[in-house]
Amino acid sequence: MTACISLTTDFTTGDVGIGEMLGVIYGIAGEDIRIADITHDVPPQNILDAAVILGRHTPYFPKDTVHIVVVDPGVGTHRRPIAARLGDQYFVGPDNGVFSLMYANAQKADQEIKIVHTNNPVYWMDEVSTIFHGRDIFSPVGAHLAAGVALETLGEIIHDPVFMNIPAPIVEAKFIEGIINRVDHFGNLESNIEAKLIADWKNIEVIIGGVCIKGLVKTFGENKSGELVAMIDSSGVIGVSVVNGNASTTLNIWQGDSIKLYCKEA
Amino acid sequence: MTACISLTTDFTTGDVGIGEMLGVIYGIAGEDIRIADITHDVPPQNILDAAVILGRHTPYFPKDTVHIVVVDPGVGTHRRPIAARLGDQYFVGPDNGVFSLMYANAQKADQEIKIVHTNNPVYWMDEVSTIFHGRDIFSPVGAHLAAGVALETLGEIIHDPVFMNIPAPIVEAKFIEGIINRVDHFGNLESNIEAKLIADWKNIEVIIGGVCIKGLVKTFGENKSGELVAMIDSSGVIGVSVVNGNASTTLNIWQGDSIKLYCKEA
Amino acid sequence: MTACISLTTDFTTGDVGIGEMLGVIYGIAGEDIRIADITHDVPPQNILDAAVILGRHTPYFPKDTVHIVVVDPGVGTHRRPIAARLGDQYFVGPDNGVFSLMYANAQKADQEIKIVHTNNPVYWMDEVSTIFHGRDIFSPVGAHLAAGVALETLGEIIHDPVFMNIPAPIVEAKFIEGIINRVDHFGNLESNIEAKLIADWKNIEVIIGGVCIKGLVKTFGENKSGELVAMIDSSGVIGVSVVNGNASTTLNIWQGDSIKLYCKEA
Repeated sequence: MTACISLTTDFTTGDVGIGEMLGVIYGIAGEDIRIADITHDVPPQNILDAAVILGRHTPYFPKDTVHIVVVDPGVGTHRRPIAARLGDQYFVGPDNGVFSLMYANAQKADQEIKIVHTNNPVYWMDEVSTIFHGRDIFSPVGAHLAAGVALETLGEIIHDPVFMNIPAPIVEAKFIEGIINRVDHFGNLESNIEAKLIADWKNIEVIIGGVCIKGLVKTFGENKSGELVAMIDSSGVIGVSVVNGNASTTLNIWQGDSIKLYCKEA
Repeated sequence: MTACISLTTDFTTGDVGIGEMLGVIYGIAGEDIRIADITHDVPPQNILDAAVILGRHTPYFPKDTVHIVVVDPGVGTHRRPIAARLGDQYFVGPDNGVFSLMYANAQKADQEIKIVHTNNPVYWMDEVSTIFHGRDIFSPVGAHLAAGVALETLGEIIHDPVFMNIPAPIVEAKFIEGIINRVDHFGNLESNIEAKLIADWKNIEVIIGGVCIKGLVKTFGENKSGELVAMIDSSGVIGVSVVNGNASTTLNIWQGDSIKLYCKEA
Repeated sequence: MTACISLTTDFTTGDVGIGEMLGVIYGIAGEDIRIADITHDVPPQNILDAAVILGRHTPYFPKDTVHIVVVDPGVGTHRRPIAARLGDQYFVGPDNGVFSLMYANAQKADQEIKIVHTNNPVYWMDEVSTIFHGRDIFSPVGAHLAAGVALETLGEIIHDPVFMNIPAPIVEAKFIEGIINRVDHFGNLESNIEAKLIADWKNIEVIIGGVCIKGLVKTFGENKSGELVAMIDSSGVIGVSVVNGNASTTLNIWQGDSIKLYCKEA
């Protein structure tokens, strides 16, 4: 058995809290544990950004990877710590909706879903601070999961986790309306419109921020610096970028804003 | 046996020197070696900052972890390279006082303390540059320690390491005066006052930068953006923050400045 | 057998693409795999910067390390994905010259050189995007190499890889002219002049940006903040720095600019 843990936080890269979490994990998990930072640069407390990251990037990890997420504005309040089996991956983090896309993906694929309120303190650190459950609850719980502890042992099964309201795109015959659900650190815009929804279209037009972009490019290499382009990004969704620039500030478009696609067949 | 090495430097995240150190470590340590970056963003040559980081965060690491520290303004001069057993952890780095808090913690807890001048070149790289002992001495020495080489084999035992003068707080019945000994990258202020010193108090007032903060909050969630708060931070010491802001620039308070606590019992 | 993979990209630290690459690698490589980030902060699409990093820093890695490089402006075009045995190390990345210095080093030392066009899709991800070969080709190919797959199995041997034109220094009896081939993130200037070329000299003068620097210092500790110094850097080449400052902006010197050394024997 291989054991893999990923970390996603809003601590910013270089924060000493990440090192503390690794110290805790290494003290519990077996010798074969392997760690991957997905990112520590989620915008502060931006649960939707983290949810989109998990939904898009966890499919690239091996079966049984434990994804620990610490984007946790409610730490120290009544929000529950949870762990979940979603498809062939595990999730550990706060019950604030951050796993909503991973959940939706598992549901769509008719895969296993099991969620636990990790309230069994046997799997926590001996002392739990009010402000750093990432170190004191999520890391030890995740490390125990990676070491083979059964999900059900970590606490009580629940059926009422918090979900984010992430709107699905509106899809019509020659028209799709979606939203930008993530702006990355370069200002690239990632929409919630999967490319497979538009597989048979010709002469696509993308409308965003009052601007019309004609057609999709296949790679940045086709275009000039400063040019506004739409493309199918590496996660298979429609994205909008400025070549060597920042599409978010150029278009004044942010998370939650609208993007529309038209099919203009000749 | 598990083997764990942590790295703490002032190289800044992304510096290629960190990769070189890992290359050296991987060539010497066994297959089971596990690496944790504590941080590479120590302010340049700020030995006190690194000393506080080590003192506070190494307790979360497994027994026998080797903590390699490269905050080394004296590289290439006569300052000695050292390694130490401090409690149940190892330290490797320059003899400039950077391990002073780890040392004090071990001393307070009446734990093992043994310090070695790592002057046995058998455990160094074949060629040692004058400007990068992190790669040429500390990394190979740390990797050999993690691989099971005995501390005494690395050089001569010494009894006169360099210590930093880190003042202890002044503690009276209803009053404590300490200092800010670390400002993190968000501008949060970390003091040298451990919360257990004030366990029985009521109605605490915190005086810092000419401002009085009434009471301690338990979590950021209780307060509004921009508000100045004092709290027991995740390391168990009194800290001062501006919610979603920078307490250091707001208060014009830096490393070494004073912080006072009063007990105002009714 | 130990297995080590290094990563060098221009994604910037914290980019989620790095996490995806690790997910792919962990799913293919064995339990003993060990990862080192060399850097993710190569200036965007700066192939020469990445080539210099590989040429200088890969010698510190263990035998058989697989160095995956994703500085890939030509992704999605006709540029080939390649893998190579260069000395006792492996390289995986785009065929754009990024391994030119590693290649030159192996050639100078009369070591093994073998290059393969990795066109066998058995060792790719099932789906290959047009914009992220780092995840879909280089990571799985690198992980298979680290897991013991033979280089020749990955595709066809080629003899016409792309090379960068990296000029060698002009060396005369009392004079050397080279170029700055890398500016690091602190603004330190790294030249292509190896210190061994000037081993017998006395009274060296360094001319750069219209300024004359007399002599080489051994360590920063010898000089004052703000002072312009020349030294043999930790890779054994002549470098120019401003102590605690930025030599590139101070001198208005960039990658490709000239640096001259004179021997002024008395």
